[in-house]
Amino acid sequence: MTPEADDDWFDEPTAQAPAVDDAWFDEAATPAAAPPVDEFGLIERLLRPLTRGDPAALSLLDDAAVLPSRPGYDLVITKDAMVAGVHFLAGEDLDVVAKRLLRTNLSDLAAKGAVPYGYFLAVGWPSGTTLTDRETFARGLAEDGELYDVSLLGGDTVTTSGPMVVSATFLGWVPSGDAVLRKGARVGDRLMVSGTIGDGWLGLLAHWGEVEDPDGGLVRRYRLPPPRLAIRDALRAYARAAADVSDGLLADAAHVAKASGLRVKVDLDRLPLSPGARHWLGAQPEAGEARMSLASGGDDYEIVCAVDPTDVAAFQAAAMAAGVPVRDIGEFVEGEGICALFKGKDITPERLGWLHG
Amino acid sequence: MTPEADDDWFDEPTAQAPAVDDAWFDEAATPAAAPPVDEFGLIERLLRPLTRGDPAALSLLDDAAVLPSRPGYDLVITKDAMVAGVHFLAGEDLDVVAKRLLRTNLSDLAAKGAVPYGYFLAVGWPSGTTLTDRETFARGLAEDGELYDVSLLGGDTVTTSGPMVVSATFLGWVPSGDAVLRKGARVGDRLMVSGTIGDGWLGLLAHWGEVEDPDGGLVRRYRLPPPRLAIRDALRAYARAAADVSDGLLADAAHVAKASGLRVKVDLDRLPLSPGARHWLGAQPEAGEARMSLASGGDDYEIVCAVDPTDVAAFQAAAMAAGVPVRDIGEFVEGEGICALFKGKDITPERLGWLHG
Repeated sequence: MTPEADDDWFDEPTAQAPAVDDAWFDEAATPAAAPPVDEFGLIERLLRPLTRGDPAALSLLDDAAVLPSRPGYDLVITKDAMVAGVHFLAGEDLDVVAKRLLRTNLSDLAAKGAVPYGYFLAVGWPSGTTLTDRETFARGLAEDGELYDVSLLGGDTVTTSGPMVVSATFLGWVPSGDAVLRKGARVGDRLMVSGTIGDGWLGLLAHWGEVEDPDGGLVRRYRLPPPRLAIRDALRAYARAAADVSDGLLADAAHVAKASGLRVKVDLDRLPLSPGARHWLGAQPEAGEARMSLASGGDDYEIVCAVDPTDVAAFQAAAMAAGVPVRDIGEFVEGEGICALFKGKDITPERLGWLHG
Repeated sequence: MTPEADDDWFDEPTAQAPAVDDAWFDEAATPAAAPPVDEFGLIERLLRPLTRGDPAALSLLDDAAVLPSRPGYDLVITKDAMVAGVHFLAGEDLDVVAKRLLRTNLSDLAAKGAVPYGYFLAVGWPSGTTLTDRETFARGLAEDGELYDVSLLGGDTVTTSGPMVVSATFLGWVPSGDAVLRKGARVGDRLMVSGTIGDGWLGLLAHWGEVEDPDGGLVRRYRLPPPRLAIRDALRAYARAAADVSDGLLADAAHVAKASGLRVKVDLDRLPLSPGARHWLGAQPEAGEARMSLASGGDDYEIVCAVDPTDVAAFQAAAMAAGVPVRDIGEFVEGEGICALFKGKDITPERLGWLHG
């Protein structure tokens, strides 16, 4: 047991290794001859600044945060976990891992129309993680914490013999009853999507060297997706239902349709594409199939939503005023499942067939 | 990409394995020739019942939960992570893993005087996890969800090539401003502790066969600690500061002392001990050293707190009325660090010395 180890911020190994010390700074970071690490000092130096003085974090002295109720608001809470080599690149820079964790969670809040507030963090460090690694990770959290105005509220770090695992629980506020949900689309609503589609998937292929990426823009987009927080007010004002595009445009549009008890038709001709995606598309032999791949790839972290046809122009104007283009790419209709159209023809692949009901 | 995979409840492997399917049910659970698993159906069957109909969980259809503000109450939020082989026994029954995860988090809420409300779950399943494994884990969550009246509100599951990793974020309510924190102890306050001390550590030794445990009570106590939720009202009424005993009595008493800017003296003669611990103690050659081990071992999940001397009797009566004995075992004094007394003599080991300041 390590009496100086804060039980929330440091590992308390017991079951297999009762004598092992804390996890946040392991032996690799402190030569055997060095004086014992002052864990409280390191919480103060690396982690407490991430709370940005929020009193709810209790200066990370407690096992918990205490958050006053905010009458007139609902709390939106989302949780995501990521594993090295699955949800981020194995060997990825740790500041990028930290930012990607924050951004994918912020994307969930954006889709709900919520204003991000703060987060709780769990990190499973692989053994051998160094002090420098932890500093790099904390720097990524600090930089995006400032950029997106979110504070660390608490958390837990442990060691694992496996790959790095990170998880965040994010809190955001939304005026009472105004959260935008997956369900709520109505027959005749237009399917709208923000930004550009397919860049996350192409960025991953570019990382593997399978796609050209002269200026690195595609890889950057995969590693550090921009959460579409800027359109949260527009979403609350005009979207009947929404989701962020993490599984892929078609999958996430299908989620909205399913939650709403409807069918959705997606016009692949109208996919909004980046210059990099257009360049790639121009080199593909089968345009319909290629567009299907862009619409099926994940990790775009755009917002897909249902908007009443009479609100489309106002939604576009509000989103554009916030700096984010949104495009009308389809329609919600009676039925179930999803239908992908290219040049007016249904080219929905069989693997999506089950969604037809 | 797997369009039918809910992006919060299922893995969306991309970085290294774009073709791999969801995580909650992997190949081991479904023979290659079987029809594709209906993931939404399985969320409905295994996970949705754990929400117990709470509307905040949005039937697990969304990427988030939406929680109405509760005027007059603060939200207490705590997050813990556990790794197989470190925080629970490698090969532990998965219903026990689930319950231990819930109970250690509930213990944090108990120490704050909070009424548990619900939780978010992240699970990193090792590859090869079967459907039966997931059912067993869900059964543990369901049983303790009923026992402690807490609902699943959302979460995320992923696969990992490493050991099983689980993390929960727990929410609880406390009347505004009434949360009991680590800081707040005053000079002259008595150090009080609930239940019995040392059984968690002895239970782990018993599991290893190093301690006798004829009726299995010690091992059971380690595997399934009872969170002391019953005394939350008594804590809010009488405790100036509190923590749960997860790192060990001395460590957690020291946390309270440090957060309060004080020194704490612990009288090892007054440790509350179970019959199993008394039996073990009777066989030890050095009683002082043995009591020090009990007070240093972790995983008791009792509550240690600071109580004004004039409130001790009332606190004991209120706690006993709730079915939990609490004992006066020491005192907060001016200074820093911790001092462990045995038969009136300071026997604080050197490894605790830094705490003396």
